[in-house]
Amino acid sequence: MADEVEYDVFGAACPSRPVLEDVTGRWGSLALGALADGPMRFNELRRRVEGVSQKMLAQSLQALERDGLVIREVQSTFPLKVEYSLTPTGEVLAAKLLDLIGYLTSSMPGILDAQHHYDQSRAEA
Amino acid sequence: MADEVEYDVFGAACPSRPVLEDVTGRWGSLALGALADGPMRFNELRRRVEGVSQKMLAQSLQALERDGLVIREVQSTFPLKVEYSLTPTGEVLAAKLLDLIGYLTSSMPGILDAQHHYDQSRAEA
Repeated sequence: MADEVEYDVFGAACPSRPVLEDVTGRWGSLALGALADGPMRFNELRRRVEGVSQKMLAQSLQALERDGLVIREVQSTFPLKVEYSLTPTGEVLAAKLLDLIGYLTSSMPGILDAQHHYDQSRAEA
Repeated sequence: MADEVEYDVFGAACPSRPVLEDVTGRWGSLALGALADGPMRFNELRRRVEGVSQKMLAQSLQALERDGLVIREVQSTFPLKVEYSLTPTGEVLAAKLLDLIGYLTSSMPGILDAQHHYDQSRAEA
């Protein structure tokens, strides 16, 4: 039975590992997090996810669409409007990712202190 | 005041963005998740995070140590024992990451279905 299989991201060959990379990868994570605010067009997403290239954003969205986490909807208007939104599973994953991101950004003062001390102790060594 | 700065991973130059990459990167995420089980030596970690090279694991751990999320402790035994563990901030981030991973692995049957349908619709097009 397919749903009795155990998935484990620590296993090198587990199909869950590439999905984790789609969800937490450099641009996929930010695209997913941005879409938690609601549906967006490609260029809106590109402005929100600062620094992403057109190619990398398209690739990340395509991987998330393939995983069933993002929906790409072409509206037959003129000019053609392409909108991206989250599926229910995508919404839960985006919320969990934003929870992690929120804690990380609130921890930044301590993290920057740690980085500073680390770099200083290396410079002295 | 340093702690009044707003950190935003969506900003291209925000120092929180590389930290997010340390935490959610391919090997950093798995190292962090593995250490949630308790302190581990390098080779234990390397066995747990299947497929990681010695170099990539060392680099990922070093980045997490610099961020103040992982502690590297050299015990003056013979042979020398080097143990890795999580800091309190690292523990919270690891728990949030494992929460996301747990949901992701439990969603794998639906995700594999979505991938299958996506690939099929592409093959037919």
